[in-house]
Formats: sequence, structure tokens, C-alpha cells
Amino acid sequence: VENRVTRVVDASAVNAIVTTTGLDRLYDLAIDRLNAMLVEYTRGTVDLKERDGFVLSAPHDGLLEWMPAIRRGSTVSVKMVGYNPHNPLTYRLPTILSTLYVFDAATGHLRSVIDGTFATALRTGAASAIASRILARPGARTVGLIGCGAQAVTQLHALSRVFDVNEVLVSDLDATSEKTFARRSRFPADRVRVASPAEVERHADIICTATSVAPGAGPVLSGDNLRPGVHINSVGSDMPGKCELPRSLLRQAVVCPDHPAQAAREGECQQLDPEEIGPSLFDLVQSPALADPLREVLTVYDSTGLALQDLAMAELFEDLAVAYEVGHELVIETNAGDPQDPYAFLADAQPDRVDEPRNAYA
Amino acid sequence: VENRVTRVVDASAVNAIVTTTGLDRLYDLAIDRLNAMLVEYTRGTVDLKERDGFVLSAPHDGLLEWMPAIRRGSTVSVKMVGYNPHNPLTYRLPTILSTLYVFDAATGHLRSVIDGTFATALRTGAASAIASRILARPGARTVGLIGCGAQAVTQLHALSRVFDVNEVLVSDLDATSEKTFARRSRFPADRVRVASPAEVERHADIICTATSVAPGAGPVLSGDNLRPGVHINSVGSDMPGKCELPRSLLRQAVVCPDHPAQAAREGECQQLDPEEIGPSLFDLVQSPALADPLREVLTVYDSTGLALQDLAMAELFEDLAVAYEVGHELVIETNAGDPQDPYAFLADAQPDRVDEPRNAYA
Repeated sequence: VENRVTRVVDASAVNAIVTTTGLDRLYDLAIDRLNAMLVEYTRGTVDLKERDGFVLSAPHDGLLEWMPAIRRGSTVSVKMVGYNPHNPLTYRLPTILSTLYVFDAATGHLRSVIDGTFATALRTGAASAIASRILARPGARTVGLIGCGAQAVTQLHALSRVFDVNEVLVSDLDATSEKTFARRSRFPADRVRVASPAEVERHADIICTATSVAPGAGPVLSGDNLRPGVHINSVGSDMPGKCELPRSLLRQAVVCPDHPAQAAREGECQQLDPEEIGPSLFDLVQSPALADPLREVLTVYDSTGLALQDLAMAELFEDLAVAYEVGHELVIETNAGDPQDPYAFLADAQPDRVDEPRNAYA
Repeated sequence: VENRVTRVVDASAVNAIVTTTGLDRLYDLAIDRLNAMLVEYTRGTVDLKERDGFVLSAPHDGLLEWMPAIRRGSTVSVKMVGYNPHNPLTYRLPTILSTLYVFDAATGHLRSVIDGTFATALRTGAASAIASRILARPGARTVGLIGCGAQAVTQLHALSRVFDVNEVLVSDLDATSEKTFARRSRFPADRVRVASPAEVERHADIICTATSVAPGAGPVLSGDNLRPGVHINSVGSDMPGKCELPRSLLRQAVVCPDHPAQAAREGECQQLDPEEIGPSLFDLVQSPALADPLREVLTVYDSTGLALQDLAMAELFEDLAVAYEVGHELVIETNAGDPQDPYAFLADAQPDRVDEPRNAYA
């Protein structure tokens, strides 16, 4: 009988992985892994299922979703992600809680359980960096952030790994978020400036909208003052009815979704007819020539999040956990020995256990 | 900052739960919990998603599926289950590996990870016991088993908790499986008799087909010699093309699926037109009068497996693990404290970490 262990990469193991690797290098690794995953998708070696989940209505409104992906012949990952806006105030927990489950595609064995909270933040930033590298002007220097929460921090950090960002304009409905952004982002404070959305439009080469604007309450940008050739990453909390950008802006732009069907349901693409939607990020990676003319025009990356990104993060964190020997190794799955005897696993402890009889076992 | 723990109910914790509870009592608890779940489904307090998953083709043919269910306001469970027939010979692992994940519906917090292998065997047996209690003659004494593997053991054990089983007829293509059944089942050996499928048909009051017959290779019973009013639980490995019972038998019988849509895709109901399918187990629990006339006629329970059953088992094993204080308590999910600072969780270890710069963090 072979007992296979499951590695549980818990909160302290993730802390060790991030600390040992260093944030900058971790972003670089995430960007490289995500980029490789896009290429592999175009080759058919990886695949994903669309996000599905439960809408939670009691005791609070929220979501709990699963995002499965597969590297054929090797690994299946499932990310579970909860979106529960009541968490911080009511439970002192993060709005987003997430875990990654990694299975061996040869056996179905649960190879790893990994805290997915930081991996999710990291991959969403890294995805925008990849889209921006493809769609923004290479000389982009000024980043504008509409919405200054946790997502804005990871957006900026990832962008700074592929662009020489020398100025950051931050805009949020909450002045405290604006003021604390430089500290939270660890970005040099003298290059961070609070700005109105109109100022962001006038100066930024790359804009990230990472807001929690409610369906019907947007848009968060007018689109009237944009610089020529600006690239926008629209990242904010995706759901039916979501709208961070005005339809007029989307119609002038080349809008590139991460996943066309999902973006048409939850992202900015909801506002567009199918023929108004541009090439997907998959298309751009498969046919780089498509992107050449796009760097000089207004472009939008409609980011809704892909299970493939989570597969890339699951593999990255698993590799690092193994390399650093962090996490807990547990034998979770029973392996009874005799596949025909469902009670074989009890043999050692209780060779001939007969329990209080009710009927035939008397 | 509140750190929520996750209870990992690993193989040894499951062993302790089964040993401490006793097999008979565990079947009784499983039957009661499953029955309550059916009632709750008809009241709308629990819900499920249909099974979905990946077909594995490399390095072997197999399946990896997820089965999500929700008790509204309380618990979300996801069962992951792998079906990999190559496991025993190639990897010395069970064909079926399974894990249960339990989330708090208020916060999305991962409350428990539970080995699901034994829970899956248990619930499939318990489901047949419930269906048989509704559809078979109350005086049923003789059980026939077509296919004598692990599933047959749990089918018989569960049936023996609700019927006074005094004779068991076992039939399998593999003579060793027939001969070892009594030992494996822990059923009194003098009441177990090897029989041909025709003998099973002639004598059994309740028949369970729990075979791994390949699509196109069935049926495993002729249906020509059945006793009047017999009840059949068709349990064997469900997949498109599956056929354990002949169509002629199904057309004479009242066929009751656990989940009509799933059974029409994977179960015996594939062979029937929609109007030939009888009431579901949900219908029978909601309207018990429907079942009264069915106990005296030929009935088939088309068992394909429900995420609700897994939710019931997840709650049962979680409750028992808490009561017995078994399993490992780990802090898996990072709770950074400041929801706007994705790096807050690093604060203790590395207050102002700045890593080797590439671009802007120089």
C-alpha cells in the first residue's frame, strides 16, 4: 500500500514563500508563468472550465465560486474563491478568501492545498502587466489608478516590472485610500500623486480601474480627456451589470477580453455587441502581429479572471513550497490496500470489529 | 485580525471516526442524514449543482469531477472525486480517490478538508437503502448482488440496516470476488451464497447491480426470471453509454432516478424516453403516497450520485471530527489584517522589504 501525501501550503508557508522569493521576483515569475500558460492554451496543452458557483443570499449577499483548469497529462487545479463584502466589518476576515487545490492528472490524488489569497492578487496584477506589455506603448511612464484598494497595489507592482513607471496618479472616492496608497504599495511616495479622474485621464499612459462600483453606478471614467494611445486595464469586481467604463469609450477602443464568453457575461464586454469586441488575449498571444497596430490606439483589457491563471499560480506556489520545504505533509486520502474491501483501512486498528447489531449483523 | 482554522480530517482521523462510531451506527447516521437532506431539498433549503469535471486522457483514461452543494445560510460543500481505473495496478492507489471541502456560507472560509473515500462508499450504500425502504417490499429478506466489489459490500451493509436480510446471493464474473465477498463484507458467511445471475433473479427480493460493465457490454441481468415486486438498485459506474439493465426490464419497471437530468445522461435512464421515467426519489419523499402502489411492482432505483449526499456526509464527518477532536487544525487562509494592503501579511516578517529591483522599485 502506498500512502500519498498532500502538501498543505498554509498561511505561514505562503508567507515564507513570498519572503524568501521576494516580491519583485515573485511578480516576475508570475508574469512569466502566466505568459507561458497563454501560449500553451493556444497549443491545446492546457484547458479550463468557465467559472461557476453559488450565489449566497443568507446570511449575507456573496459569492462562492470554483475555477477549474487542467494541464493535460500532468495537473488539475481548482481554485475556490469567495467574495463576501460583509467579511471585514462583520467577521474581521478579508472580502476575498481563496484556496487552490492541485490534483495529479494521472491518479486524481490531491497533491497540494494552497492558500490562494495572495496568489489571486498576484495573478490579477500579472495578467494586466502582460496585457499592457502587448497593448500599451512601450514607453509608458505614467500609471493612473482609479480605485486605490488592494487590487490597485498589485496592478501597479506588476506594471512596474514591465514598464519604467515614474509617476503614479491615484484616485479614489475614499480620501483615506488615496492618502495611504503610497505606504501600502511600497512605491516611492514622491512619485505617487492624488488626482481627480479627469487628471488621471489627461496624464496617464496606462490606466487601471480596480473599483467596487456597483452595477448601474458606473462608469468611473468619462473617457473625454484620454491621451492618444492610452491603454486601460478594467479589473474591478466583475458581475452581471458591471460597468467601469462608458460605452462610448469602449466603442472607440479596441477591447480585448481575457475570456470572451465570460467577459460578455461579467465584464465590460457586456456593453458591446459581439462584433464590437476585439481580439482576446489568447488571439494576441497566438498572432502577435495582430497587436502591432494596437499599441498606438486606445485599447482596453477586459480582465475577468481565468482558471488558467490560477493553474499557473498553483504550479508556481507548489514548486516553491517543494523547493523551500515549507507547508505540512499529511496523508489525507485513505488507501485501504484491498480495493475490493471498503473496510480494509480499519484492519490495523480493529481486525474484526462488529458493532452493536441492529439487523443482520447480529 | 482573526485567524480562522481549517480542520483537516485526514485518513487517520477518518479511521478514528469510523472506529469510534462503529460501522453499523455510522450507516444508521448516514441513512438518517441522507433522508433528512432529501426532505430539505423538497423544502428548498438545500440545493446542488450537477456534476461537472475533466475527462482525463493522458497518461491514462479517467475522470476528475466536482460535485458542489449548498445548505443555504450555513454550508457549501464541494466533493472532488477521481475515477482512475489504472490506479490499482499502475500506482497501487484506489480507483476512486475523493476529498470533501466544506466552506462557511457566511464568509467563504474553508472550514474543513475531509477524506471522502469512505464517505462516498457509505453514502452510495445509504442512498440505495433509502430508495429500497421506499420502493421494496418491507418483508424483503433475500438480497442479490450482481458485481461483488467494494460497492457491493456497502450496498449490502446499508440494506441490512433497514431490512432483516437473511440470505445474500452473490454473482460476479470474477470467481475470486465471489469467494472473498463474505469475508470482505463481514456478513455472516453461512448466509452468503454464490449464485448465477439467473439464480439471483429467481430468488432475490432486492437486487443491487454494482458492476464496472463497460458501455455497450451490458446488460448484466436478463430480467426474464425476476420475482414479482422485486426492487433493483442500479448503482454501477455511471457514464454515457452505461447499461446494467436491459431496456425491456426498464420498460416494465417503474424507474426512479436520484437526479432525472443526470440519470438521463449517465444512468439507466439513458435507455428511456422522458415519459417512460418514473418519479424521482425527491418526488417520492415529497409525496409518500406516490410510493404506496410501487412496493408491489417491479421498481428500479437509478443511482447516479448526488452532491447533496456528499453535503450530508461532509456535515456528518465534520460533526464527528469535532465531537471526537480528531484531525489537524491549520491556519490555511491568510488574513492580512488590512484588507487594502495585500502585503500586510508580510508585515511581521519583513516590515519594509524591498527586493532586487528591476524597474521602478530601484
